Amino acid sequence: MTTPGALLRVTLGEELRRTRQAQGRSLRDVAGEAQVSLGFLSEIERGQKEASSELLNAICGALDLPLSTLLMTLGEQLADAPVLGTVRDISPAAAPEVAAA
Amino acid sequence: MTTPGALLRVTLGEELRRTRQAQGRSLRDVAGEAQVSLGFLSEIERGQKEASSELLNAICGALDLPLSTLLMTLGEQLADAPVLGTVRDISPAAAPEVAAA
Repeated sequence: MTTPGALLRVTLGEELRRTRQAQGRSLRDVAGEAQVSLGFLSEIERGQKEASSELLNAICGALDLPLSTLLMTLGEQLADAPVLGTVRDISPAAAPEVAAA
Repeated sequence: MTTPGALLRVTLGEELRRTRQAQGRSLRDVAGEAQVSLGFLSEIERGQKEASSELLNAICGALDLPLSTLLMTLGEQLADAPVLGTVRDISPAAAPEVAAA
């Protein structure tokens, strides 16, 4: 699950969870406001599911977290992360194509 | 296609295209190095398809563009964008759930 290429998804999920918990809010509360299922939000927070742009936008809206702020925070966090290997380090099986709609 | 929620996907695609063109490289060249189909890369650049974390990582690798740099650039660009509306502005049809794998 945690291939180098999954780093963004995992870091994103951690940041969303951290933000939600800092607000003292439940998964149910945020999922309801973002109109996403509780289970799916939980999977996103654990870096197990990829969020579409629309869904990420909805979650950020529910958390009163500007998307721009989230992206810059993630950028800073990943800048501190170990440098990733080359494309060759990512097995095709770990890099599925994801359709937007 | 261009709902408010699609802004990240569209902005991301534009930035990837801008970076590729600034390097004077073809879609074929970058797609080959990232091991993604030329058509899919083109759809990502046009904001029509969502890239998974793994795929985005591979494309950034092919462009020699650190993911952290890309995220911070996108964060800055979106900070200058008009403030998005609430979650209610995003129709369910425009906010599909995207599976990671």
